[in-house]
Amino acid sequence: MEKIKAAVVGYGNIGQYAVQALQAAEDFQLVGVIRRSGAPVPSELAGICVADSVENLKQKPQVVLLCTPTRTVEQEAKQYLAKGISTVDSFDIHGQIWQLRCSLEQAAKAGGAVSVISAGWDPGSDSVVRTLLEACAPKGITDTNFGPGMSMGHSVAAKSKPGVKDALSMTIPLGTGIHRRNVYVEMEQGADFEAAKSAILADDYFAHDETHVKQVESVAALMDKGHGVNMVRKGVSGQTQNQRFEFNMCINNPALTSQVMVSCARAAVSMVPGCYTMPEIPVIHLLPGTLEEKIRRLV
Amino acid sequence: MEKIKAAVVGYGNIGQYAVQALQAAEDFQLVGVIRRSGAPVPSELAGICVADSVENLKQKPQVVLLCTPTRTVEQEAKQYLAKGISTVDSFDIHGQIWQLRCSLEQAAKAGGAVSVISAGWDPGSDSVVRTLLEACAPKGITDTNFGPGMSMGHSVAAKSKPGVKDALSMTIPLGTGIHRRNVYVEMEQGADFEAAKSAILADDYFAHDETHVKQVESVAALMDKGHGVNMVRKGVSGQTQNQRFEFNMCINNPALTSQVMVSCARAAVSMVPGCYTMPEIPVIHLLPGTLEEKIRRLV
Repeated sequence: MEKIKAAVVGYGNIGQYAVQALQAAEDFQLVGVIRRSGAPVPSELAGICVADSVENLKQKPQVVLLCTPTRTVEQEAKQYLAKGISTVDSFDIHGQIWQLRCSLEQAAKAGGAVSVISAGWDPGSDSVVRTLLEACAPKGITDTNFGPGMSMGHSVAAKSKPGVKDALSMTIPLGTGIHRRNVYVEMEQGADFEAAKSAILADDYFAHDETHVKQVESVAALMDKGHGVNMVRKGVSGQTQNQRFEFNMCINNPALTSQVMVSCARAAVSMVPGCYTMPEIPVIHLLPGTLEEKIRRLV
Repeated sequence: MEKIKAAVVGYGNIGQYAVQALQAAEDFQLVGVIRRSGAPVPSELAGICVADSVENLKQKPQVVLLCTPTRTVEQEAKQYLAKGISTVDSFDIHGQIWQLRCSLEQAAKAGGAVSVISAGWDPGSDSVVRTLLEACAPKGITDTNFGPGMSMGHSVAAKSKPGVKDALSMTIPLGTGIHRRNVYVEMEQGADFEAAKSAILADDYFAHDETHVKQVESVAALMDKGHGVNMVRKGVSGQTQNQRFEFNMCINNPALTSQVMVSCARAAVSMVPGCYTMPEIPVIHLLPGTLEEKIRRLV
């Protein structure tokens, strides 16, 4: 069987795991990594084509995994879609997903390609579970509880305060959709911790949640890529109350994000041109193998 | 907006809950219940068109929910599909789903209709979760643990033994896909319990599991429609080990089955003619509402 030719764009946290996930997927061929020219090539990329643009790869990919910052996704995706190359991203600003979908729907159709957006775990695989649970019990409440795990946005906000050298904001699930923020800060020498703490507590990122700010010697020493989700729905199926559902995961965050992206890249090659969020994709397309084998094994 | 015209075929355990679920779904119009002629019409069906065939309903349904025994599904579905009426069933013999799909795929395409098969909770919504979890961690093991809840097949097998008046076989999850069977039997007057117990333990339905057979005064007094699932996957995302996922539910069995059928009936009207298992259907189609509203709320 012909392998799916894929490239990884960006070689940060997610990009590194995306390369591993493509190498582990037998139905994919990793045709290269696209990153800024001049950056030193790390040893694990020896033997992999590294280029500063898709034109400089030896083979043209059918699909690229956009492992670039969320705010650059729209612009990056459009460049590839215009060339007829499908894209997968893990765009994670929940309030802007619909707008991105409208924009990339046009671009994907114009390029005769597929764009799968927000294909991480939340948004992403969690979105599929949230939708399915609502189909199982249409009336009711779903609470998505995150963590324990690092919040990138909150960590950046804490790090931006005067005197803060490095910061880690952990999201701690308290249940029913309520979260605690444990913020670990490493101060510049001689800087005022109490002032930084006050600034963090007053920041809109933290002002609405229970927040604890602690000074530590080294933030790097606390770093862990683990994360988790506990999603709970209690609702009504038909006219029957108290139907209960729960979805839990305890995962390496970038490893799961990049794996979901690879699975969506597989789906991308079997979808009609256009832009899709994960709940719009039949989950069977996320897996390799024949339809018969998958239905016999999984349904 | 035009409501989806649906009818319920069969008025047993699932059919009764299916009527409730359709009545609770604002985008559906229940155009009738199809059941054997001559059966007395229960009071809760007052005001609902009850007929012995789809031709005798006042309005033609777009889709029927087949709430008839699993073994009659193929034959029933073909009759409706030939008339251009879509079907949804909860066919639950795992080993025969692919064969059913092949058979109804032809029938559905010939009739220009959609057939959604095995649309209960397992097979059904569980199948979607199983598939999604494999896309999140392609290498690893998924264990689906059922119960505590009644197993219809095992109960029927126990009831078939000489001297047994009524029987209930409860499936008890012991974890890692291993189950205990607790079998409650009510004996005919003067019948030999020990002989019945031996016959049950020797039956192929029970011979491979830890089974406990207990004599009770009344099986009816033990009946409860609750059931549960605990699905666990531990696997590898990309090259990262020990990714952990868990899905739990504690539900009224026929209420969830019929609700899933209604959600799939909604999806049926937006799919291209053919036969589908649930992992082949984008979960977003299971819900009412506009695409924009659903993506904004759920993704």
